[in-house]
Amino acid sequence: MFGEKYDVIVVGGGHAGCEAAAAAANMGSRTLLVTMNLQTIGQMSCNPAMGGIAKGQIVREIDALGGYSGIVSDRSAIQFKMLNKSKGPAMWSPRTQNDRMRFAEHWRLALEATPNLDFYQEMVRELLIEQDKVVGVRTSLGIDIYGKSVILTNGTFLNGLIHIGEKQFGGGRAGESAARGITEQLLGFGFASGRMKTGTPPRVDGRSLDYSRMVPQPGDEAPGRFSYTETPLLQRQLPCHMTYTSPEVHDLLREGFDRSPMFNGNIQSTGPRYCPSIEDKIHRFHEKERHQIFVEPEGWETVEVYVNGFSTSLPEDVQFRALRSVAGFEKVKLFRPGYAIEYDYFPPTQLRHTLETKLIGNLYFAGQINGTTGYEEAASQGLMAGINAHLKVNEKEPFLLRRDEAYIGVLIDDLITKGTEEPYRMFTSRAEYRTLLRQDNADLRLTERSYALGLAGEDRMRRMLQKKEKSQELVQFFKDTSFVPDQINPILEEVGSRKVAQGDKLFKVFSRPKVQMSHLMRLEGVATFVADHEMDEEVQEQAEIEVKYSGYIEKERNNADKLQRLEHLKIPDDFEYDKLSSLSFEAREKLSAIRPATVSQASRISGVSPSDISVLLVYLGR
Amino acid sequence: MFGEKYDVIVVGGGHAGCEAAAAAANMGSRTLLVTMNLQTIGQMSCNPAMGGIAKGQIVREIDALGGYSGIVSDRSAIQFKMLNKSKGPAMWSPRTQNDRMRFAEHWRLALEATPNLDFYQEMVRELLIEQDKVVGVRTSLGIDIYGKSVILTNGTFLNGLIHIGEKQFGGGRAGESAARGITEQLLGFGFASGRMKTGTPPRVDGRSLDYSRMVPQPGDEAPGRFSYTETPLLQRQLPCHMTYTSPEVHDLLREGFDRSPMFNGNIQSTGPRYCPSIEDKIHRFHEKERHQIFVEPEGWETVEVYVNGFSTSLPEDVQFRALRSVAGFEKVKLFRPGYAIEYDYFPPTQLRHTLETKLIGNLYFAGQINGTTGYEEAASQGLMAGINAHLKVNEKEPFLLRRDEAYIGVLIDDLITKGTEEPYRMFTSRAEYRTLLRQDNADLRLTERSYALGLAGEDRMRRMLQKKEKSQELVQFFKDTSFVPDQINPILEEVGSRKVAQGDKLFKVFSRPKVQMSHLMRLEGVATFVADHEMDEEVQEQAEIEVKYSGYIEKERNNADKLQRLEHLKIPDDFEYDKLSSLSFEAREKLSAIRPATVSQASRISGVSPSDISVLLVYLGR
Repeated sequence: MFGEKYDVIVVGGGHAGCEAAAAAANMGSRTLLVTMNLQTIGQMSCNPAMGGIAKGQIVREIDALGGYSGIVSDRSAIQFKMLNKSKGPAMWSPRTQNDRMRFAEHWRLALEATPNLDFYQEMVRELLIEQDKVVGVRTSLGIDIYGKSVILTNGTFLNGLIHIGEKQFGGGRAGESAARGITEQLLGFGFASGRMKTGTPPRVDGRSLDYSRMVPQPGDEAPGRFSYTETPLLQRQLPCHMTYTSPEVHDLLREGFDRSPMFNGNIQSTGPRYCPSIEDKIHRFHEKERHQIFVEPEGWETVEVYVNGFSTSLPEDVQFRALRSVAGFEKVKLFRPGYAIEYDYFPPTQLRHTLETKLIGNLYFAGQINGTTGYEEAASQGLMAGINAHLKVNEKEPFLLRRDEAYIGVLIDDLITKGTEEPYRMFTSRAEYRTLLRQDNADLRLTERSYALGLAGEDRMRRMLQKKEKSQELVQFFKDTSFVPDQINPILEEVGSRKVAQGDKLFKVFSRPKVQMSHLMRLEGVATFVADHEMDEEVQEQAEIEVKYSGYIEKERNNADKLQRLEHLKIPDDFEYDKLSSLSFEAREKLSAIRPATVSQASRISGVSPSDISVLLVYLGR
Repeated sequence: MFGEKYDVIVVGGGHAGCEAAAAAANMGSRTLLVTMNLQTIGQMSCNPAMGGIAKGQIVREIDALGGYSGIVSDRSAIQFKMLNKSKGPAMWSPRTQNDRMRFAEHWRLALEATPNLDFYQEMVRELLIEQDKVVGVRTSLGIDIYGKSVILTNGTFLNGLIHIGEKQFGGGRAGESAARGITEQLLGFGFASGRMKTGTPPRVDGRSLDYSRMVPQPGDEAPGRFSYTETPLLQRQLPCHMTYTSPEVHDLLREGFDRSPMFNGNIQSTGPRYCPSIEDKIHRFHEKERHQIFVEPEGWETVEVYVNGFSTSLPEDVQFRALRSVAGFEKVKLFRPGYAIEYDYFPPTQLRHTLETKLIGNLYFAGQINGTTGYEEAASQGLMAGINAHLKVNEKEPFLLRRDEAYIGVLIDDLITKGTEEPYRMFTSRAEYRTLLRQDNADLRLTERSYALGLAGEDRMRRMLQKKEKSQELVQFFKDTSFVPDQINPILEEVGSRKVAQGDKLFKVFSRPKVQMSHLMRLEGVATFVADHEMDEEVQEQAEIEVKYSGYIEKERNNADKLQRLEHLKIPDDFEYDKLSSLSFEAREKLSAIRPATVSQASRISGVSPSDISVLLVYLGR
């Protein structure tokens, strides 16, 4: 039936699988997406939102690289917010609320419009492996599908076990079956696996809520977008609402603690630290009298509502009683209770930087199977696995992103170098060079690299170059152009900045925090220059950031470049650490296990000391 | 959690469950729809189409009664056709192709907009029964939800077993779990259950088809609609395509016959006779060299395609090879193979006319659980069960439709009187009074009755009355208005009908088959009358049918009225047939088992002879 041999077979149709399939197919690989249910492609299993702090940056990076997550999110958004706008631009983080149905629909249609991509609905039960290399998959019907590479993106489905109170049942998601067979087979090949846990809150009937008792959370007045392409900007938006738990709610929740799988020992595995269940929050922060709850609509038209912040696996009656004590929820009706789910993951130190497994050639893992949490983390891994599977099949050099190039680089390097004992989520604090890795410049950072791969198209490249040239021109203009005190002092006075006694370059005064582009635009010379050169708001913003934060940016760039030299120092794949007796025992053990690709990566492994690095450098001929 | 006691609990969210929930809630019952997955409400499990011969009439009846199927179908249609337009109006049957995703979405949104209707996602595992009366349901989490009545609409999910070739696995639909527990519990209460089988064809990738080798099947040039309300008419339509199997395709299929669950004994249960699998068609009609295949798009934008006419449970490799030999399918790619599914049903002779079970009070069955096949059959049962559950809970008289009132009446009467050994599908031939039960007059037949129930609203009633009055006026006008030969003879000559020598009433000449409304509209008097009275095309069509078929209609009306008298002769529920020794043994046995509500129903039971009916009539005091 599948006489043809695929280049890339992607197992799973979630965020990781979708991006993997799109990337491989767009680069020209004959690609097959196999999923248990074609109707659930691109499902948001948890909250109906994309982006947020650090995650929004990842979505923009995916977009700059030619992935679909940004476009799909924009097209299905019901609200857009740029978070942290009051902080420095490294912290600005775009986030959308999404229509859950539309999101899945746009994913499905985007994939259907992708050349070289086939679809097949069935559960994959087994990998076909020959001489430590994957050569295809076997489905539950026993159909063998051959492929030169396979990307596993099983999410929470591998031996998924759902918990609500003291009850447990198999499932990959509420109402959907778990996937079996893969873990067991991989263990046989020497893989290590572990269990992780995640959870989701109840869904409720919006018609039963009293929004007058909550605080509206509207979207931005001038909504932006994720994509650097011209996806349509939102013309109208839906508000979210905020409410709070209370001591009474906490007491009601505590009544179920003895029946909580989190507390009675039923769940042993670790959940996402920064996305804790409500019972966890109460337990850990018992001095806090209230916790925020964000009431998020599930779409433009549906009455279904997502209760963000109330993730729980307490017994459903406890969930219900406690929820009814939340302001605005007095008459709430549940569509379905929250639950926790345990699933298999494979510690990601078993992967190369390309996300290919070290044990089985041409087999890639992406998403929650690697111990991460979050749609954006999953999507970006899928994208990178898809790209690298294509490159490997075509015997080309791998495509890697450095830690100073992209959050995606940080993510993958963290995973494969440090591994993770708990669901890994991205934060700005994980990035040493976050001033470089901004949401505004993901295109400047990445488009060219993706274009060279043949993934980002001409249009993306042209747009990026134009933005780059124009913003540089504008920065240069500020550097070249002088002002006289009479021009600028009224503005400085207005914004409460010290007046100047003599003229200087505009760059200098623009560097002051309180002076904004909108102020300078009042100067005729600036306004004329901007108009003459058709510099849109994106260009102006880019120039403003580059002027204002030039000091920080330059410093981080230098630091990064310094470390970069170590990054270029590759360690052979078969390097025998055991023979370097001057390495510490721990370093030898860790290095042998993780097999870092570069000295820089080696330096980031916990337990590998600077002196171990010196030994390595000496040995490698420095 | 569910402290509240519902009036009506509907289990299942397919066509039957959706209509049941909407009807009960719209009539004012506190209603709960419980389904395994809220994301799959209103799924079309099989072909993406509604209506067709006899079934289209049912959809219009559902609409006239205030159900949602017609509106949802209209809003999600991608093509409309009035079938059998060349035959008499009793045979005219509307049919739509639908966008599968939109269909489900419109159902979901329509239900969400329905007052008194709550939703809950979970599998129902057990019924709560006290003293032979249902009082609620128990979910798989062990939650008890109390309700005054319960409607089961489990479709193919009860112990569903999917077959592809020699493989079998549990499931209610491809990729979805089966439901367990209910059958076993009902058997314990003395119910009889059986197994039925149905099947579905492969879904394929439209991008892999060569449509130039097929015959386009466009929709009607002037598309109509199902609903009597003003749902928007289609502005554009998508075509289907027709192709054929061939002796070569048949040979390829035959190669898999020894591995076919239909032929090797794996499937013992009976499938739908008039919707056979392709292997069945080849087997039974081995002299036929080819069978039609209708290639139906799954929606406006998706590339997924439904291969109507190629339902099969042959091994997937056989399906694939054979399909590739079909003209236009040379390069076909499968999205998923066809399969057969076996499921539990309950012989419907265990039901009353209201669809309430005889054994357990306030428990209703609707849809495939009653041994029917087809979306329309299921939806109409759901509607009737929803109405009657509401009425019973409110201690009101049941709502029954007679065989001369509606196809729905024929359907339910056939089911509960004759039972069914194979999936029951509606045909025009099942209706004795099909000239009365036309698609054009479902509103005239049923709106008033539904309005009296409080289900059909003011708007429907007003529209219906207007159509009725105006069409009667127009018929009267034809009866009253005379013509002179010079006016009419040119028209008669043109259409090839015998000329007249002297004047007469318009009614007379209009009764001739070849003379159509459009011809008469050329007469100034007719055109003026129609314009002055604002008689739209629907009114004109109605009048035309009433004029042209008045003889047939009157005759059937008389026959129906005659039988109607027997219909009014009710048989007490506890009638002791055993004591009537003059009844034949077979009649006593059948009557005791089926317990007909009226003498008319008794007369339709196979094995009950006219002499048995005479005995009954004598005993009942005639």
